Amino acid sequence: MRAAYVEHPGPPESLQIGDLPRPEPGPGQCLVRVTVSAVNPIDTYVRSGAVAMDLPSPYVPGCDLAGVVEAVGSGVSRLRPGDRVWGSNQGLLGRQGTLCEYAAVDADWLYPTPDAIADQTAAAGALVGITAHLGLVREARLQPGETILVVGGSGGVGSAVVQLAKALGARVIATAGGPDKAAAARDAGADVVVDYEATDMSHAISEAAPHGVDVWWDTRRAPDLDQAIGLCAPRGRVILMAGRDARPALPVGAFYTKECRLLGFVMFKASPEEQRAAADDLCRWLASGEYRPRVAESFTLEEAAEAHALQESATVHRTADLAGKIVVRVGE
Amino acid sequence: MRAAYVEHPGPPESLQIGDLPRPEPGPGQCLVRVTVSAVNPIDTYVRSGAVAMDLPSPYVPGCDLAGVVEAVGSGVSRLRPGDRVWGSNQGLLGRQGTLCEYAAVDADWLYPTPDAIADQTAAAGALVGITAHLGLVREARLQPGETILVVGGSGGVGSAVVQLAKALGARVIATAGGPDKAAAARDAGADVVVDYEATDMSHAISEAAPHGVDVWWDTRRAPDLDQAIGLCAPRGRVILMAGRDARPALPVGAFYTKECRLLGFVMFKASPEEQRAAADDLCRWLASGEYRPRVAESFTLEEAAEAHALQESATVHRTADLAGKIVVRVGE
Repeated sequence: MRAAYVEHPGPPESLQIGDLPRPEPGPGQCLVRVTVSAVNPIDTYVRSGAVAMDLPSPYVPGCDLAGVVEAVGSGVSRLRPGDRVWGSNQGLLGRQGTLCEYAAVDADWLYPTPDAIADQTAAAGALVGITAHLGLVREARLQPGETILVVGGSGGVGSAVVQLAKALGARVIATAGGPDKAAAARDAGADVVVDYEATDMSHAISEAAPHGVDVWWDTRRAPDLDQAIGLCAPRGRVILMAGRDARPALPVGAFYTKECRLLGFVMFKASPEEQRAAADDLCRWLASGEYRPRVAESFTLEEAAEAHALQESATVHRTADLAGKIVVRVGE
Repeated sequence: MRAAYVEHPGPPESLQIGDLPRPEPGPGQCLVRVTVSAVNPIDTYVRSGAVAMDLPSPYVPGCDLAGVVEAVGSGVSRLRPGDRVWGSNQGLLGRQGTLCEYAAVDADWLYPTPDAIADQTAAAGALVGITAHLGLVREARLQPGETILVVGGSGGVGSAVVQLAKALGARVIATAGGPDKAAAARDAGADVVVDYEATDMSHAISEAAPHGVDVWWDTRRAPDLDQAIGLCAPRGRVILMAGRDARPALPVGAFYTKECRLLGFVMFKASPEEQRAAADDLCRWLASGEYRPRVAESFTLEEAAEAHALQESATVHRTADLAGKIVVRVGE
């Protein structure tokens, strides 16, 4: 089968396109004919070695996929050949990824694609949607009527957080830099959008949430905890899932007298049960139109290195803007 | 009735001893004949104005009390005159405190004193016990078999945390500075005591908890989040309830990849129901001997200013050490 892979961690151009053996589905696994893979920042960190993991060699990157079940291993009863599925959490912790024509995936990590939803949409919404759900529901326990602030509400995770928070009944304030990103955040459904290039962000947030923010989701690489704690409501929760090298000061007095919480998590450490609980809601919200993942750029499998380079230019080098996800069309 | 009070916030010597009108129990209140009041750091912060609160004038400080129900107001069925009671959370948020012969206290804030327990013991264990319980149970959800690290395991809150964590079935590592405090932490029941004046604290903790610490309770005025996050186990929880002026750096990458949580709280903001849930366990553990509050120094009501000055020398000026609580004997 055709696949994009690296022999060793390296830059985007170390991604080779070639033939690898088609995998066999093991017990509990499905062999999925991949139609679409999506690219996430974590894919580039694992491929480059920035996040060190034990990798098979050759290693196929890619967390997200959509496709069709081709065959099932022993013990699989939930899915059958021909079923349309989507999933995430591949290409991690020793597992092969999804930039290839066939992937052997534990059935636990696969979810039914709603009839009216295109594979590109399902793949584009996989990791970011599960991440947003875990943060909002498992971590922050967002309640209907609460106010959430999404810093970076037009990005991959950010726009998923905006949409899921709306689906959960919250009031959503999103920040975005510049008119295009502001429009994207508004399009995602934010009730209030603060363009931090055009206005004082803290002042605008305190005007939009005079009683404070109940949940503060910071997608920045340099979260500002003075700002977050200062603008939180009593018992406010701050979600941290980015900013690997950041070392912001924590204002301890304001933090504990407001009874705040800082909650850190990474999506790929969630159990299959936790991820499935998130995916069940996502399937429902995909079908209802409440969750509308947005595709920004589409590449072929042969262009996998370009797809990774574009992801890095947006999230590592900060030289490009993306108004949605990068997807890679692998098959039909 | 005799009482210690201030007309305006000020230093310990602004505490006057004099006669104030004996209060009447309102609806839902008990009039308690106070036998013992205990002194906590928060009492000195409110008295000095360091923690700004609207105060009645004259204002009687004091959160904790033990005594006997003298009379009950309308609607009180849980308690009767003659019942021995203890309680906390007075002298705050506009309420008068307990450095006086009679206090009108909402019955919601009063708990039955176990037969064999002296009033000094019950008063000494009130605020610190409820604080420890809220942090361990409501906030950190400490589980049997987990490992907890108590930084400052010989102090007022610290020694209560050690004892309650043992009662909850955890393994307890406590730090203490010097042989006397180390002995006090051991006496409180810590499984491992690290004397940070005699050994490298981080090294000793990592040796005692090679898989990491599940709950890190930092009572220091300058918590070290690099140390805490570095020594936490995956999904470790860090409790912060002190360090009003501290601004430690948070290592964001380690924090979220370990899926840690920072949990801030203040005891006096807990609801009567939350505090009663804590007090129910404390009554049981007082009776069983699992909770043994320790009295370090005892004063008469006339010596209230000395009691406050000693508390400040231990927790504000750091010129004195206390191996237990300061209590004030108000009546018989």
